[in-house]
Amino acid sequence: MARLKVAFLGPLGSFSHQAAAESFCNLPADLQPEVSFPDAFAALQKKEVDYAVIPCENSTNGSVMQTLDLLADRNGLYKDVKVCGEYYLTVHHCLMVRKGTYPGGWADYDGSITKLYTHSQAWGQCESFLTKYFKGVERQDVTSTSKAADIVSKETTERGAAIANRFAAEQHGTDILVENIEDRADNTTRFLIFRNVRDERTAQAELGLPNPPTVEGEPALEATHKTLITFTIDHSSPGALANALLIFKAHGLNLTSINTRPSLKKSWQYIFFVECGWTPSDLNKEAVHKALDDLRQVTETCKDLGTWKDQLRSSNA
Amino acid sequence: MARLKVAFLGPLGSFSHQAAAESFCNLPADLQPEVSFPDAFAALQKKEVDYAVIPCENSTNGSVMQTLDLLADRNGLYKDVKVCGEYYLTVHHCLMVRKGTYPGGWADYDGSITKLYTHSQAWGQCESFLTKYFKGVERQDVTSTSKAADIVSKETTERGAAIANRFAAEQHGTDILVENIEDRADNTTRFLIFRNVRDERTAQAELGLPNPPTVEGEPALEATHKTLITFTIDHSSPGALANALLIFKAHGLNLTSINTRPSLKKSWQYIFFVECGWTPSDLNKEAVHKALDDLRQVTETCKDLGTWKDQLRSSNA
Repeated sequence: MARLKVAFLGPLGSFSHQAAAESFCNLPADLQPEVSFPDAFAALQKKEVDYAVIPCENSTNGSVMQTLDLLADRNGLYKDVKVCGEYYLTVHHCLMVRKGTYPGGWADYDGSITKLYTHSQAWGQCESFLTKYFKGVERQDVTSTSKAADIVSKETTERGAAIANRFAAEQHGTDILVENIEDRADNTTRFLIFRNVRDERTAQAELGLPNPPTVEGEPALEATHKTLITFTIDHSSPGALANALLIFKAHGLNLTSINTRPSLKKSWQYIFFVECGWTPSDLNKEAVHKALDDLRQVTETCKDLGTWKDQLRSSNA
Repeated sequence: MARLKVAFLGPLGSFSHQAAAESFCNLPADLQPEVSFPDAFAALQKKEVDYAVIPCENSTNGSVMQTLDLLADRNGLYKDVKVCGEYYLTVHHCLMVRKGTYPGGWADYDGSITKLYTHSQAWGQCESFLTKYFKGVERQDVTSTSKAADIVSKETTERGAAIANRFAAEQHGTDILVENIEDRADNTTRFLIFRNVRDERTAQAELGLPNPPTVEGEPALEATHKTLITFTIDHSSPGALANALLIFKAHGLNLTSINTRPSLKKSWQYIFFVECGWTPSDLNKEAVHKALDDLRQVTETCKDLGTWKDQLRSSNA
């Protein structure tokens, strides 16, 4: 098989890069950084890449609005881009410095760091650690955690440290002083994996995601599937939203999450993103298809954004 | 009646300040700036203020996550704070300069402005105007549009201009050069008005919101009401979310919007915020009460966040 091209949001060493590398670790893949989410989607629509790995939700911060807006595709730019998988990345932050600064590691640390670098969102995620060891030390916001690692890797005059992931340390050759300095051990980002449905090359491909851990002694649950459907309704029609949501239940599709974004066609009207879970069987092979047929009767617009294997259910099994 | 105290998110001259001033223009009210949304809610819970005016949604950018997180009240800090009204503020931006800089106004403008100040979100909202008249002029982000007006009002050396609202111009005594420089004429922010339900002083008070414009020749529609309810469900129980949403329909409450935030108790479990519309009649006086009773049977937690008059429906009438 020819090597796959997988797009992610750069720079190199970002959490998106890590998610792309880990989710495609079992396949021959070249990872390609993109400067924005729309660039990644555009590359996929034009079949310049085979897949795109995009963050959609964080367990603490909630949904990524920018990704929902991309999925809304209000201008019809990404008609053939659909979800084909998901990947859960646990967010671990490390404190890192230029190679060789403290040969004895954290045990050897003498309090000489005078400046800290990271992305603005990361400070709050490591507040307990920073308050304990770096109270009063200057903090410099940078555009990404990977950029922070890059800066300290090249530092010559100041004593700086970066907060970034282990992956960024490998990319930029920094020394990790302390691992897992985040406050919440369970801070996880869910990435969606997209493909172009008109791309024959990836039509039959198995994503080959790393095997989720199984609990000894317990049989693995049958993998459950997820489907994402987006629709708009006529808000002036009473009950329209309830009727649309009822259709999922009628076809045995279990609503697991609902998100909304402004339609931007009329104020206070929304695009709904409904995710539902179901376990395939001979009886419900057509469930999504039938639900979509019914939805078209009660919605203004309606689009199937893809079906994929639920990695969370698998890893809980 | 003693003067009311109304909290809003400062500084003076912010869009929140404008919304508070306009929504309480018919009542004797002192407006009190707060440094954060939680401060405004805390003041209301402690009955230090009578009302708080908080932005909840923008017609272009969608829901304000920070406000949803406040409403989620995960730590039970604001038990008595509920919605009692809403106010729609159309976002108009103006270009303003220090008083007297261009006595002849925009007609007199000679291209001498060298620096522009505003909040980071405002640049994108005025891009067409800025591209036409200020291509290549230096842009400086500041913490609020009001702060931008404040800076240029005191400018002595540079030729700066601020992008802020008319209200900020009045607050800081700047001259408006051009009004309504925003790209989208319909960019509107919805504010919710909160009170403490244990405060007897505001229990019977009518908010006295400014009369919405009525269209000549058309009879005004009977005012419709909105109710906001928040709940969490057991996500491991199939159909739990659909069942909860069905209850609204069963009681004649029309779902108008749904928002979700992470529960922060367990990853990938959510707090749902459901807004529904209904027109009070003798028959449905108990509809919200009954719906809540039913919801308690199928949800883990469930809270009524208040009922108020739908200002949008009124103004469309």
